[in-house]
Amino acid sequence: MEHPMATLRLQIKIGKDTRIGHGKIGLLEEIEKTGSISAAARTVGMTYRRGWELIDQMNRAFGRPVVTGTTGGLGGAEVTALGRDIVAHFRSIEAKVLHIATVDLREIEALVETPEESATPQG
Amino acid sequence: MEHPMATLRLQIKIGKDTRIGHGKIGLLEEIEKTGSISAAARTVGMTYRRGWELIDQMNRAFGRPVVTGTTGGLGGAEVTALGRDIVAHFRSIEAKVLHIATVDLREIEALVETPEESATPQG
Repeated sequence: MEHPMATLRLQIKIGKDTRIGHGKIGLLEEIEKTGSISAAARTVGMTYRRGWELIDQMNRAFGRPVVTGTTGGLGGAEVTALGRDIVAHFRSIEAKVLHIATVDLREIEALVETPEESATPQG
Repeated sequence: MEHPMATLRLQIKIGKDTRIGHGKIGLLEEIEKTGSISAAARTVGMTYRRGWELIDQMNRAFGRPVVTGTTGGLGGAEVTALGRDIVAHFRSIEAKVLHIATVDLREIEALVETPEESATPQG
């Protein structure tokens, strides 16, 4: 058995309440691709309602919309320049971080005792 | 009003299920200081039960204990070498990451529209 992967996840916290992580960033990226909140939500495995909630949280945290044309969920949705900036900064941080965290993550993985290692030899 | 702070939070994911972030790491650090799960849990604002759950999640993820001497919550608790290694790696990643993410975080903060900026001038 291989060692379970140790991976790094990032969240950007805005103020006290809003956390922006892979869920929200992935959703924005899919809206950018598909031009549709419902299609994007489906792709990332969430309901339209949940997708809209996450967008609304970001709109409130930044004081202006990250997605426009969303009323009622009909017609096209478009990620705003603000939304694209947020995605770009998140991915920028992530790329730098994954690079420098690699050695520590491999060392953490090596700390995980797999069943074979802990098993008493049989017979 | 100042811009809401944009801060970075890290989680190390072990396999599919276990996430190790500030909550678990802070708890381990307090147990190391106090020699007591209940005192540590109190300091970080969680119940003894919750503290024990977090320790148990780590014990399972790594296949061996991160804290010893914990049965029943009486007597001293001690962070194991494994537990100290996990804390050290987490803090090591965090220190490097905070350093390289600073510029992106300041730029994200600048994207937040504060009430004063968005307010229409009165009179």
